[in-house]
Amino acid sequence: MIRAGIIGATGYAGAELVRLLMAHKETEIVWYGSRSYIDQKYADIYRNMFEIVEGRCLDDNLEELAQQADVIFTATPQGYLASVLKERILEQVKIVDLSADFRIRDVAVYEKWYGITHASPQYIGEAVYGLCEVNRDQVRKARLVANPGCYTTCSILTAYPLVKAGLIDPDTLIIDAKSGTSGAGRGAKTANLFCEVNENIKAYGVAGHRHTPEIEEQLGYAAGREITVSFTPHLVPMNRGILVTAYASLIRKADGTLPGMAQIRAAYDACYQAETFVRVLPEGICPETRWVEGSNYVDVNVVIDERTGRAVMMGALDNLVKGAAGQAVQNMNLLFGLPETEGLLMVPVFP
Amino acid sequence: MIRAGIIGATGYAGAELVRLLMAHKETEIVWYGSRSYIDQKYADIYRNMFEIVEGRCLDDNLEELAQQADVIFTATPQGYLASVLKERILEQVKIVDLSADFRIRDVAVYEKWYGITHASPQYIGEAVYGLCEVNRDQVRKARLVANPGCYTTCSILTAYPLVKAGLIDPDTLIIDAKSGTSGAGRGAKTANLFCEVNENIKAYGVAGHRHTPEIEEQLGYAAGREITVSFTPHLVPMNRGILVTAYASLIRKADGTLPGMAQIRAAYDACYQAETFVRVLPEGICPETRWVEGSNYVDVNVVIDERTGRAVMMGALDNLVKGAAGQAVQNMNLLFGLPETEGLLMVPVFP
Amino acid sequence: MIRAGIIGATGYAGAELVRLLMAHKETEIVWYGSRSYIDQKYADIYRNMFEIVEGRCLDDNLEELAQQADVIFTATPQGYLASVLKERILEQVKIVDLSADFRIRDVAVYEKWYGITHASPQYIGEAVYGLCEVNRDQVRKARLVANPGCYTTCSILTAYPLVKAGLIDPDTLIIDAKSGTSGAGRGAKTANLFCEVNENIKAYGVAGHRHTPEIEEQLGYAAGREITVSFTPHLVPMNRGILVTAYASLIRKADGTLPGMAQIRAAYDACYQAETFVRVLPEGICPETRWVEGSNYVDVNVVIDERTGRAVMMGALDNLVKGAAGQAVQNMNLLFGLPETEGLLMVPVFP
Amino acid sequence: MIRAGIIGATGYAGAELVRLLMAHKETEIVWYGSRSYIDQKYADIYRNMFEIVEGRCLDDNLEELAQQADVIFTATPQGYLASVLKERILEQVKIVDLSADFRIRDVAVYEKWYGITHASPQYIGEAVYGLCEVNRDQVRKARLVANPGCYTTCSILTAYPLVKAGLIDPDTLIIDAKSGTSGAGRGAKTANLFCEVNENIKAYGVAGHRHTPEIEEQLGYAAGREITVSFTPHLVPMNRGILVTAYASLIRKADGTLPGMAQIRAAYDACYQAETFVRVLPEGICPETRWVEGSNYVDVNVVIDERTGRAVMMGALDNLVKGAAGQAVQNMNLLFGLPETEGLLMVPVFP
Repeated sequence: MIRAGIIGATGYAGAELVRLLMAHKETEIVWYGSRSYIDQKYADIYRNMFEIVEGRCLDDNLEELAQQADVIFTATPQGYLASVLKERILEQVKIVDLSADFRIRDVAVYEKWYGITHASPQYIGEAVYGLCEVNRDQVRKARLVANPGCYTTCSILTAYPLVKAGLIDPDTLIIDAKSGTSGAGRGAKTANLFCEVNENIKAYGVAGHRHTPEIEEQLGYAAGREITVSFTPHLVPMNRGILVTAYASLIRKADGTLPGMAQIRAAYDACYQAETFVRVLPEGICPETRWVEGSNYVDVNVVIDERTGRAVMMGALDNLVKGAAGQAVQNMNLLFGLPETEGLLMVPVFP
Repeated sequence: MIRAGIIGATGYAGAELVRLLMAHKETEIVWYGSRSYIDQKYADIYRNMFEIVEGRCLDDNLEELAQQADVIFTATPQGYLASVLKERILEQVKIVDLSADFRIRDVAVYEKWYGITHASPQYIGEAVYGLCEVNRDQVRKARLVANPGCYTTCSILTAYPLVKAGLIDPDTLIIDAKSGTSGAGRGAKTANLFCEVNENIKAYGVAGHRHTPEIEEQLGYAAGREITVSFTPHLVPMNRGILVTAYASLIRKADGTLPGMAQIRAAYDACYQAETFVRVLPEGICPETRWVEGSNYVDVNVVIDERTGRAVMMGALDNLVKGAAGQAVQNMNLLFGLPETEGLLMVPVFP
Repeated sequence: MIRAGIIGATGYAGAELVRLLMAHKETEIVWYGSRSYIDQKYADIYRNMFEIVEGRCLDDNLEELAQQADVIFTATPQGYLASVLKERILEQVKIVDLSADFRIRDVAVYEKWYGITHASPQYIGEAVYGLCEVNRDQVRKARLVANPGCYTTCSILTAYPLVKAGLIDPDTLIIDAKSGTSGAGRGAKTANLFCEVNENIKAYGVAGHRHTPEIEEQLGYAAGREITVSFTPHLVPMNRGILVTAYASLIRKADGTLPGMAQIRAAYDACYQAETFVRVLPEGICPETRWVEGSNYVDVNVVIDERTGRAVMMGALDNLVKGAAGQAVQNMNLLFGLPETEGLLMVPVFP
Repeated sequence: MIRAGIIGATGYAGAELVRLLMAHKETEIVWYGSRSYIDQKYADIYRNMFEIVEGRCLDDNLEELAQQADVIFTATPQGYLASVLKERILEQVKIVDLSADFRIRDVAVYEKWYGITHASPQYIGEAVYGLCEVNRDQVRKARLVANPGCYTTCSILTAYPLVKAGLIDPDTLIIDAKSGTSGAGRGAKTANLFCEVNENIKAYGVAGHRHTPEIEEQLGYAAGREITVSFTPHLVPMNRGILVTAYASLIRKADGTLPGMAQIRAAYDACYQAETFVRVLPEGICPETRWVEGSNYVDVNVVIDERTGRAVMMGALDNLVKGAAGQAVQNMNLLFGLPETEGLLMVPVFP
């Protein structure tokens, strides 16, 4: 059995890790780290776990945890892992970091967007960006995995095939993303109260959301050059789910015509035909968050807008699963040589 | 592998059966019966099943199905199963009926509350009321299981221990139940449109809901005599979940005092301590539907109101799981001698 | 123009007062009291008021306000008004208190249920309980009005006619109430976050909610004696609305029969036929919160359950309007001799 | 008093017309047209109107209605008004058409996008497109007003100032719109059931929604030439509200720099400073649907994305008010020389 520790186990992403690992055959949780609830029974905080989880919350002593665990998940605020990471920890244990600390290659970009000084830039180089469908092989050999952001996973997987195939101009890429409210975390903020979120939709972080550079970096690798995108997140009155609607100009052929649907779909199939968790929907069917809720699937599809010469790409995932805890478990499976889908084949829950 | 057929596979209860059986190790679905969608791919109707379910919808030919299956689930309107059931079908296959056709022992009561003539009263006698925690042993030997209603399961399990122990006066029992909207089914009715249900709560079927006689009959067995209860269902703007708040006068002791909490809780423990799926919450903690969503658990608890001399009993379950498909699978497990929890240990999904 | 001041203008009830008073022809708001937001523009906190309200938030200096206003609304935590009220304030200005400070006649009962010492018991005697439909004449002559609680208003108006007419046994009264989440206030608490409330229903304060003694006192006046009731509030995933479902045993006639529907409805009509804001629905129609949202109406109705001999009484209102700010304005209208409906004839908003 | 008739009074837009006209001082409703509910009391269908509206539903006899009314609102399916309109009707009565029949100047464009033959193209020429803030003067003189679509109103008013001022390249315009579910109407369709819409977000009509040509035509007038835009609507789990997020490349100055925020905001102020119903929010504040709910306001704002050289324009309105019934009343006010804001100064309802 793989012994897993979770730092930040009482946030929504941490709690989803607990849910997924309880159904994972090769893992046992040995550490429920939660600075806010030390010594309290985990099931007193998340009562869905009553009679399922017996453990109590512990502090976030990474060094002690490293001695007891084979893998550590850090579902913590930005800056935490960078501030405590040490070589001897990495020698003892694999780490899957759900924060942004090691997602961005260029430390200056990280520091600019996150407004904090990076305390451990020396580990950025070895960290692998854990978007499994793209970096599977590198993840297998890693000690430190930077688990992608929720918006990022959805945005990248939605646009990746057309960027990679050179069928769209990546600098025209506009990503309009909509997220359920669990993405905002469990902190007690007025803005996230039921009455403030319900019966409302709003954009936020316009032209400045921190997932932007992460999307640009990863899609830039696919494009083979630096790119700049517009990214706008929105808050939707639902618990889970991210929907991305992405727009980009198609690259016309030499004769001025647009690429056809066959070519477009072939680009998606080339990337995802062998992938269990990315489902390319039949032509004409739009992804919807309800069809992936509670599961590790990402549904994607694309429409050609002949009139404007644009591709409208769409993707949907559950922000707490494929957008956070599910992908973290997928990375853990890769790190330990387990079947990549172990513990992750939950059928989406509807309604 | 147990071969399972579902008649009514495209209603919400039927779809939940599909979801649960996809994760059941000993079962394969051989028949997706849906009169409305014959020949259509099941995954075209429930797109969460894309790349998971490959089957197409078939008609509801019970006789043909009986030859191909080991168990049939009928998630059908009232009257359907009674109208087609035959001895040679019951000789071939086990049936778990999610409709009300065989739940009520007294055919006159059935016909009065449901307003239809019962077409097969001869099978009522052998049908076992499939409330597993109460009738486990009889279910094991049955051919025909009447799977309890969603409100009924929640109401009975909430009040059962105090009725059984004679600690409350069952004729003072008032059950105020609140249900998510999936209980109203997938039929296209104006009253169930998003804008009609959202931002609203209402009672319906006041003093006349069909689950009333079912509750009375079963709790009557526990009381050892006929009882009459008040039952009022309400529609709540959420997808899943039933919460029951039940009130009854406590039977005072000879000295005029009320039974104490220790005695009350002992009654619950006596019934449920050995039960996996009924969780008696710690004292002072009220059941909430969010803590059981997506799972087969029922959470129950009780408060003593010293001022009024009443017990306030509460129970919460997921109407599509323990209130329908989950209990049906639990019954199937009993019918086939499998571990009762097989395929049913899903951790509740929150948020 | 009546000059109105609001203490606690940035809570949900305070904000609703602002909304209603903006449409009130005889009133101008002169003081937006909000200790948390002093000097900030009110419309920066409630952006629905952008270009509608120009004022800034002020502190809660009751003495200074008393010199500038004709009426003060206190939408403040329990204990605040009692702690600052003085005779010279009451000599200068009328007060409508939306807190519980002056709702309960017996100071010992108040102190027991609220767990605080009452700082101004000397004003309890003169305070008028501002349930307009019941105490209209006393309100007109008052200096200090205790505006009823939201649950209380709905519970009392729902059961009042049958208690008053002696058609039910008030000691059998069980009130099961369901409220939208705005009733929980705008404080930043984890329990009220969108993801905690959405897709959930729960009871809370079982056998101990503070509105219980208020209901008992007022219905006791109708009954002509002290009564004890069971009251259970529930939290529903919607913004506004309270639905009360109340159960009580009907008093049988000398011949053992139940009172008929004609007699029951006559009791309701006797109380409410002349009332603008209480709508007795046609027989067979259940109140629903959606039909009163945004308005000052209370919809009530009753069903006779012949089998159990009980009346099932139902009532629905908007907790922020008739349950708080609307009733406060109605009281203000009475205090100043205006038409009672001034500013309150908003048509309910649906959907 | 203006006598108003409504054809299609029992759809959501029709019902909102009733709500608004009940509070309009110069209007009385003389005809509640509803083919589906003929002879039923209007308040039996919309119970919020109980004791407020006494009328019964009538058929949709436009000719008879024309003799009894001064203005007719047609909240009807596409093609209806075109199929029954006659010169003698227009001679008797003003018409505000909430359908699309007379919104598109080019009949070929209408017939292509709507897939029906236009039965009265001869009236297209005189119909005035009733976007009051743009075409106020023409509306005043019209007999037939084509009330704009909900998405259209929000999209146009959001982008109009920058298109008009030539500050963006209109052919780069991408409009990503999100709507509450009341926009889908009250028809009993499975796709609009509570459980299908709740906890979900989806795009629909991608690259083919019928509001696209309407937006293109009107913004084309502002641009002074034909333009083509991308428009994608999404369905959001809330009752009311449309949020538009629109993206376009800013036109760089001769020196290659982007226009500054002062210039951008000046363009908005130039269009909207004198407008009551369009609120240009302070810099940095994003429009949210909750702040306009129940009201006739449109909130707009813009962010400059320096990195991509794009403007991100945002607008929010209530689809049933400014997006339908409110704008229709605003047009009626113009048609009859009333103050344009009569009956429309409702404060937005929050929460």
